[in-house]
Amino acid sequence: MIGDTAVSPGGGGFDGLETPCLLLDADILQANVDRMRRHIDGLGVTLRPHLKTAKSLAVARRAMAGPAGPATVSTLREAEYFAEGGVRDMIYAVGVAPQKLDRVGAIRQRWGADLAIVLDSAAQAEAVAAWSRRSGDALPVLIEVDADGHRSGVGPRDAEALVAIGRAVADGASLRGVLLHAGDSYGLSDPAALRRAAEAERVAAVAAAEILRGAGLPCPVVSVGSTPTARYAETLAGVTEVRAGVFMIGDLFQAGVGSCTIDDIALTVLATVIGHQRDKGWIITDAGWMALSRDRGTARQAVDQGYGLACDIAGRPYPDLIVRDANQEHGIVAVRKGAAAGLPDLPVGARLRLLPNHACATGAQHDRYHVVADGRLSGEIWPRINGW
Amino acid sequence: MIGDTAVSPGGGGFDGLETPCLLLDADILQANVDRMRRHIDGLGVTLRPHLKTAKSLAVARRAMAGPAGPATVSTLREAEYFAEGGVRDMIYAVGVAPQKLDRVGAIRQRWGADLAIVLDSAAQAEAVAAWSRRSGDALPVLIEVDADGHRSGVGPRDAEALVAIGRAVADGASLRGVLLHAGDSYGLSDPAALRRAAEAERVAAVAAAEILRGAGLPCPVVSVGSTPTARYAETLAGVTEVRAGVFMIGDLFQAGVGSCTIDDIALTVLATVIGHQRDKGWIITDAGWMALSRDRGTARQAVDQGYGLACDIAGRPYPDLIVRDANQEHGIVAVRKGAAAGLPDLPVGARLRLLPNHACATGAQHDRYHVVADGRLSGEIWPRINGW
Repeated sequence: MIGDTAVSPGGGGFDGLETPCLLLDADILQANVDRMRRHIDGLGVTLRPHLKTAKSLAVARRAMAGPAGPATVSTLREAEYFAEGGVRDMIYAVGVAPQKLDRVGAIRQRWGADLAIVLDSAAQAEAVAAWSRRSGDALPVLIEVDADGHRSGVGPRDAEALVAIGRAVADGASLRGVLLHAGDSYGLSDPAALRRAAEAERVAAVAAAEILRGAGLPCPVVSVGSTPTARYAETLAGVTEVRAGVFMIGDLFQAGVGSCTIDDIALTVLATVIGHQRDKGWIITDAGWMALSRDRGTARQAVDQGYGLACDIAGRPYPDLIVRDANQEHGIVAVRKGAAAGLPDLPVGARLRLLPNHACATGAQHDRYHVVADGRLSGEIWPRINGW
Repeated sequence: MIGDTAVSPGGGGFDGLETPCLLLDADILQANVDRMRRHIDGLGVTLRPHLKTAKSLAVARRAMAGPAGPATVSTLREAEYFAEGGVRDMIYAVGVAPQKLDRVGAIRQRWGADLAIVLDSAAQAEAVAAWSRRSGDALPVLIEVDADGHRSGVGPRDAEALVAIGRAVADGASLRGVLLHAGDSYGLSDPAALRRAAEAERVAAVAAAEILRGAGLPCPVVSVGSTPTARYAETLAGVTEVRAGVFMIGDLFQAGVGSCTIDDIALTVLATVIGHQRDKGWIITDAGWMALSRDRGTARQAVDQGYGLACDIAGRPYPDLIVRDANQEHGIVAVRKGAAAGLPDLPVGARLRLLPNHACATGAQHDRYHVVADGRLSGEIWPRINGW
């Protein structure tokens, strides 16, 4: 092994960074935001970006229409962090537990934030209405409607349940509308099927809203969203707003769906080569699953990207070079099975950038973004949060 | 849906906790540590606990022989954190990149810590020796030896490479010995095969050490370890120390291997029920993959535990109730496919405890442990770190 490789210092302005770490390309981020905003503006509805992917105020400010929102969050920790940063119009888009209402109320009061909540049962509605009556703060509520059998929500044509929940909410709290998430669209990759999923989400939303209105209940907000259906929606008649998050950053999974291209992915993990198993064609890096996350979402897609796709320091993918396996702090980089590409010459100390399977999961393994602009490290660091 | 379920406040002393959060049973932790220490003491070698699972000083102090160590770490961030907390004898057990040597040296100097490093190539050895000569600090080095083709390391009988690396290290740095990790043992579940894996790891370690000694090089330390091989080792003749980490906490994956039982798992995620899809037999909780991690290690074992096994608030598993699927902040709890068990009555607001697939991965999604003692919340919170 003596003398087979020199130690490389890396390059591209990233030499001083400790690895593994997150790089976020601010130019790609901005282009992704601009593209989605033009599309949703063109459909005549409001974009309510979901901040759960980036969990960063700096990213949120680029994604939102203005510094106060509107925005979507997935945890009350996010709601607090973004409220502290000036965001005032938020939906906490995960079904609320009664134990969380005091914290919701505190966020609304402390920051004067219009924080709305989501529920899908009469039990929750009754608890929320009772809390509202006790506190004197009529919490704004969206009823979660199930677009596609993916997860939570009332059936969009289950009039009995919708009206019962709506009436229970209105008995003290404030019924604001309906909210859907077409999560099953993540399993698609055919544009025609994605357009159908977007239309099915819209139709379900409008049906549920009409049921509530038909029963004399208010339904000013009709909120839909997922990155794939937002990208493929052709009409949003009857919808008032679209929620989506991962579109800002993109990832290999969304590229597999067809929501973005690999060139649209703004996030990479910077890694350093720490060894080789030359007889096996393995390059070992210091970015294991702790840095990349355990997400293997592309495993079920047409192209399995392992734990990530390896790029050079400029962000250009090496042909068929993936993170084939990962331990906690070791990534095994190798050419995809069956591919003819050769292994690049990356000595110990060389650096790579790894495109992630899932931006939400990979981001959550880190506490900051190192910002790339014009292809080089800008020097800016954008903190991000985790936890609940 | 009206009136079908009451809102439950939870119970068991955990009512005041925000969910999702981590619970760590200090009694189970202590029993796990005591059992492993008796076993390794009985084999006449030193236990060098790996702190990468818990990443907590409070846990480390219970696991180590004394407040100064010895211990193993997987990142330099861990080395800094534990050095600040008084740990003085550490191995950073991931192959070192040349760029990290200044930080290694700073930890050694600032805290007077005996922090050793690991490498498996002459390129690294030359860089380390050159750094040592320049700085005047002869870094202690273990040569990583590959026990089973799992990941990194020199072949245990590759005398040419071992001696070349050893000599390159000794030209300025301090050769301390060899280090192996029988990671392929994670794929086993048969006790006889696990005993063979432990013996193979030992034999490989001794062979590599003998090659170095035969060439006139020092090899005082012969370090092996993985939780399964540590548990199943019957003799450790020629070995000086054993590294293992996850044994302290346990998880469903290790239970599938046979390194622990389900009753030995000290870590659970406390979750709150936020909804139901009754026609599908789903209970929706607020512990999704963000709280549980994306780790699906049990998917390849005889018993697939989904994203985790659901227990009541006292920590007793419900029959065949698993986290069948997970979104970012939603867990879908359901009876295992094909099982006859009924769904427990868990209304919105009820609480469950979820046993994790992989303690290292689940722990990393959180920043603290809420400590359980005598089956109840003790009030103690043990912080934990993440990052690099």
